[in-house]
Amino acid sequence: MSALFLTAALLGNFSTRAQNANLPVTPQEIARDALASAQAGAAIVHIHVRDPATELPSMDTALYREVVDRIRDKNDDLIINLTTGNGGRYDPSAADPAIAGPKTNLLMPDDRVQHILAIRPDIATLDLNTMVFGEEVVINTLPSIRRMGTLIQEAGVRPEIELFDSGDVAILNTLMAEAFFKEPPLCSIVTGVRFGFVPLPETLLYARGLLPRNAIWTGFGTGAMAFPMVAQSALLGGNIRIGMEDAIWLSKGVKAPSNRAMVEKAARIVDELGFDLETPRQVRTRLGL
Amino acid sequence: MSALFLTAALLGNFSTRAQNANLPVTPQEIARDALASAQAGAAIVHIHVRDPATELPSMDTALYREVVDRIRDKNDDLIINLTTGNGGRYDPSAADPAIAGPKTNLLMPDDRVQHILAIRPDIATLDLNTMVFGEEVVINTLPSIRRMGTLIQEAGVRPEIELFDSGDVAILNTLMAEAFFKEPPLCSIVTGVRFGFVPLPETLLYARGLLPRNAIWTGFGTGAMAFPMVAQSALLGGNIRIGMEDAIWLSKGVKAPSNRAMVEKAARIVDELGFDLETPRQVRTRLGL
Amino acid sequence: MSALFLTAALLGNFSTRAQNANLPVTPQEIARDALASAQAGAAIVHIHVRDPATELPSMDTALYREVVDRIRDKNDDLIINLTTGNGGRYDPSAADPAIAGPKTNLLMPDDRVQHILAIRPDIATLDLNTMVFGEEVVINTLPSIRRMGTLIQEAGVRPEIELFDSGDVAILNTLMAEAFFKEPPLCSIVTGVRFGFVPLPETLLYARGLLPRNAIWTGFGTGAMAFPMVAQSALLGGNIRIGMEDAIWLSKGVKAPSNRAMVEKAARIVDELGFDLETPRQVRTRLGL
Amino acid sequence: MSALFLTAALLGNFSTRAQNANLPVTPQEIARDALASAQAGAAIVHIHVRDPATELPSMDTALYREVVDRIRDKNDDLIINLTTGNGGRYDPSAADPAIAGPKTNLLMPDDRVQHILAIRPDIATLDLNTMVFGEEVVINTLPSIRRMGTLIQEAGVRPEIELFDSGDVAILNTLMAEAFFKEPPLCSIVTGVRFGFVPLPETLLYARGLLPRNAIWTGFGTGAMAFPMVAQSALLGGNIRIGMEDAIWLSKGVKAPSNRAMVEKAARIVDELGFDLETPRQVRTRLGL
Repeated sequence: MSALFLTAALLGNFSTRAQNANLPVTPQEIARDALASAQAGAAIVHIHVRDPATELPSMDTALYREVVDRIRDKNDDLIINLTTGNGGRYDPSAADPAIAGPKTNLLMPDDRVQHILAIRPDIATLDLNTMVFGEEVVINTLPSIRRMGTLIQEAGVRPEIELFDSGDVAILNTLMAEAFFKEPPLCSIVTGVRFGFVPLPETLLYARGLLPRNAIWTGFGTGAMAFPMVAQSALLGGNIRIGMEDAIWLSKGVKAPSNRAMVEKAARIVDELGFDLETPRQVRTRLGL
Repeated sequence: MSALFLTAALLGNFSTRAQNANLPVTPQEIARDALASAQAGAAIVHIHVRDPATELPSMDTALYREVVDRIRDKNDDLIINLTTGNGGRYDPSAADPAIAGPKTNLLMPDDRVQHILAIRPDIATLDLNTMVFGEEVVINTLPSIRRMGTLIQEAGVRPEIELFDSGDVAILNTLMAEAFFKEPPLCSIVTGVRFGFVPLPETLLYARGLLPRNAIWTGFGTGAMAFPMVAQSALLGGNIRIGMEDAIWLSKGVKAPSNRAMVEKAARIVDELGFDLETPRQVRTRLGL
Repeated sequence: MSALFLTAALLGNFSTRAQNANLPVTPQEIARDALASAQAGAAIVHIHVRDPATELPSMDTALYREVVDRIRDKNDDLIINLTTGNGGRYDPSAADPAIAGPKTNLLMPDDRVQHILAIRPDIATLDLNTMVFGEEVVINTLPSIRRMGTLIQEAGVRPEIELFDSGDVAILNTLMAEAFFKEPPLCSIVTGVRFGFVPLPETLLYARGLLPRNAIWTGFGTGAMAFPMVAQSALLGGNIRIGMEDAIWLSKGVKAPSNRAMVEKAARIVDELGFDLETPRQVRTRLGL
Repeated sequence: MSALFLTAALLGNFSTRAQNANLPVTPQEIARDALASAQAGAAIVHIHVRDPATELPSMDTALYREVVDRIRDKNDDLIINLTTGNGGRYDPSAADPAIAGPKTNLLMPDDRVQHILAIRPDIATLDLNTMVFGEEVVINTLPSIRRMGTLIQEAGVRPEIELFDSGDVAILNTLMAEAFFKEPPLCSIVTGVRFGFVPLPETLLYARGLLPRNAIWTGFGTGAMAFPMVAQSALLGGNIRIGMEDAIWLSKGVKAPSNRAMVEKAARIVDELGFDLETPRQVRTRLGL
């Protein structure tokens, strides 16, 4: 058994306070949860921001900056990972699918990473998925992926490559063959987002086999599969991720009282399976951050 | 070892006469290749049509009807499978991804199946994929899949469900749970289309494990993996598919002289592995056509 | 997520008090650990006995009877599973491998199950393995397996079929095809015994795929892989087993203070992954005991 | 697609002329079949000998020498691989399993390799299996494996390590960790011998994953699975083996007219799948023979 790192995914775009009143929403709350997650064993915090007034997803650099500053006031080591996931949805309108419907939020690649260029966090996610998402779709074209990846890497930020299905791994491997990404690639195998990778043990096993051999990867699941996938990823040699972005429940019928409680539980699971959690410093060394 | 059926995929949308001069393009040529493939062992022919003048993909019902009539003049048994794949491409324009660029060809679901409703072939494909495709994307939303599937089934036509990645299997399973599709589902595991399922043995094994238990499935690959995937699908209990839609080569350095030659080769491979090819009549019985 | 049962394997043949002073050895200690394990969540206890004087493995029916009586004095529900593993070792002598060397303990099949016929516990293990074991080998021939299985089943005892490698599953499937075993078969996938199944996630996945479809199975590992395999078996839909037969450590550097502590830890792991432990009554219903 | 080599396994110990009258039995016939197999594409011939009078397996060095000399008279390049499989059976007698019964043929390790030391062929097989075999068992203890392996390697002969189940791969990996075998290890994954590896695609995939990363391996099957496993091994990146040791049928209902015909068929299958057969010279370079 060896060491692995834990990423706390604090809120995401889709969880709501109606689902779990303990969801952090303001920069202050998000920073508070980040610091508490670090104390509980997280080496990395994955962060989205919300408009504090509406509680809806936001891409406001000022909000991201406030979160980051509040974390850095207290903790220099914790690795900060900001999302670039917003701005990829296309809603084919009912009367003509070639005309964007009201739920479309597609943005230019440069606009999706402006907060990354401004803030230069340790890590920024880079989504490779094009997939059905609810009644709409999420689109990440190759030109867009290349542009975002270039901007992220030129800013000295490490992309974490989000893989939602096996075709995304094929994109990754194509880009690796072009030496597009810095080695070793940092990846997530995202399971349980409909309709992408199915959250099963065999999925992580299959996907792991497709990854570049030197990939540093995290497998995770959503909803009821969040904690099972913590164990499964560790058992297969991966790193782990947990938090209110992925699930609102701590256990059957019990809403998570905090991100910290979720991190504590995930840390306990992997500890009981014999794994050690890496500190932010150890992860910085491993990733060359 | 048991029996399996062979689908001849005669031309598709993307192969060109510049790549292989033997590609059938006119209704006459397509029907000729269909009949020859049947003689060589194909139980099913999967058909696209082209505008004879431009050789570009067409959705003209008259062209489909001419192909079907020419086949039926000579062969009542051969199972005819018409594509509904056209009309799913979205090209986010360079200046604003929410505005359709020039390669967009997205159509309303009803328009994509008009030839099916008019002709009522034995089988019509139903693509479940939303994925990167070249610099663009292919989109098949859930509402569109449901509408097309409903129209196809109401016309008494059997949908063949095309699965390009594991998330498509998740869509299939969701629809099966709603009893949307007639049992048993008829499926294809499409490998080798970038960026979908990777054409590897482990892909067919993994994807097979995700299918509904009673699924009747065909695994196939493209390009250099077309004949290897014929063997692999058979070895894993699947049916097989071959033809100029999937590959232009008969073997390394040798362009396929005809669809018939490709069917003959695939038939020989599975025969040498101990499998029997089912006749169209046997397949009609198995599928309840 | 669903329910599963936990078997406590209390001592085995090979663990020693030199390794862990808390190993139960006398009938009184074994019964005490069985009852404590039941309180901590075990539905089944798997039992070997030792000569209290020498602490070496014994097949003495009186010792087995004392253990069973001591358990039944306090607990009518707990499912009792007695080993039949002793008596399978062959030590080819150095000068002539066809002559049994000093470590040989091969017994006639009838002698290996005499305590089962006398006591009629709920379950008796039936080892299907023939394999290298240290410098010697363990032998279970087909005639011996058949004889032992017949005697066990005729005594109204349920065999738990121990599978140490994939060939043992092939033996199981051969015997199932003869309707030799009562349906559904109760099996263990034993990993980590050198040189049998390797204790890896892919091993349980592969072995699960070979089992009869209706098999009720438990996957487990030994040593450092004991707790990881608890999680892995649960995640793959299996039942779980833990105890001092399989490992002497509770965690890295910490010797297990008791079987109960090991059962508590395994119960906690599967609880945190969302599984419920079945009670002995529930398992009796499921197995038809 | 890449290149692979083909081993012709000409007769083995168990096929009989009653099963297939074309089985080579005399040194002259065996050499004839070896040379014909080479012409048909085999780079390696795997050889057992029989007593010409009784047609029963023999370990007579003179017979082996005659076969080798007859091959070398005509062909200097063909790689010669001699078995050391004889002498591993133990038949526990009905009255006392610790006493050897009449079918026992266990030999001292030195006696099992005497023909190898005398003749020094290119390759000698080294069986790692301990398993049920019919009503008896085959035994290869660790001390015996070590002794045979040492003698084979000290004679300058390359061992081909025969893996009959996953526990044998665990033995291999243990010995590799001791640097016992020359790198890279040359291995066979033997499927279809009851009761060892089950002849399924997933078996080769699973076993491949257990092998040392640099292993040069051949997967094969027996009986009706002989030709399917030729394709499967090639598709998974392995080398191939065929011949009357593994099957007596060329196809359903057709007895193999010769080893050459079997080699031709296997060569045709892998050619149709896009693989090139390596010549003996190429294999000698790859293996450092």
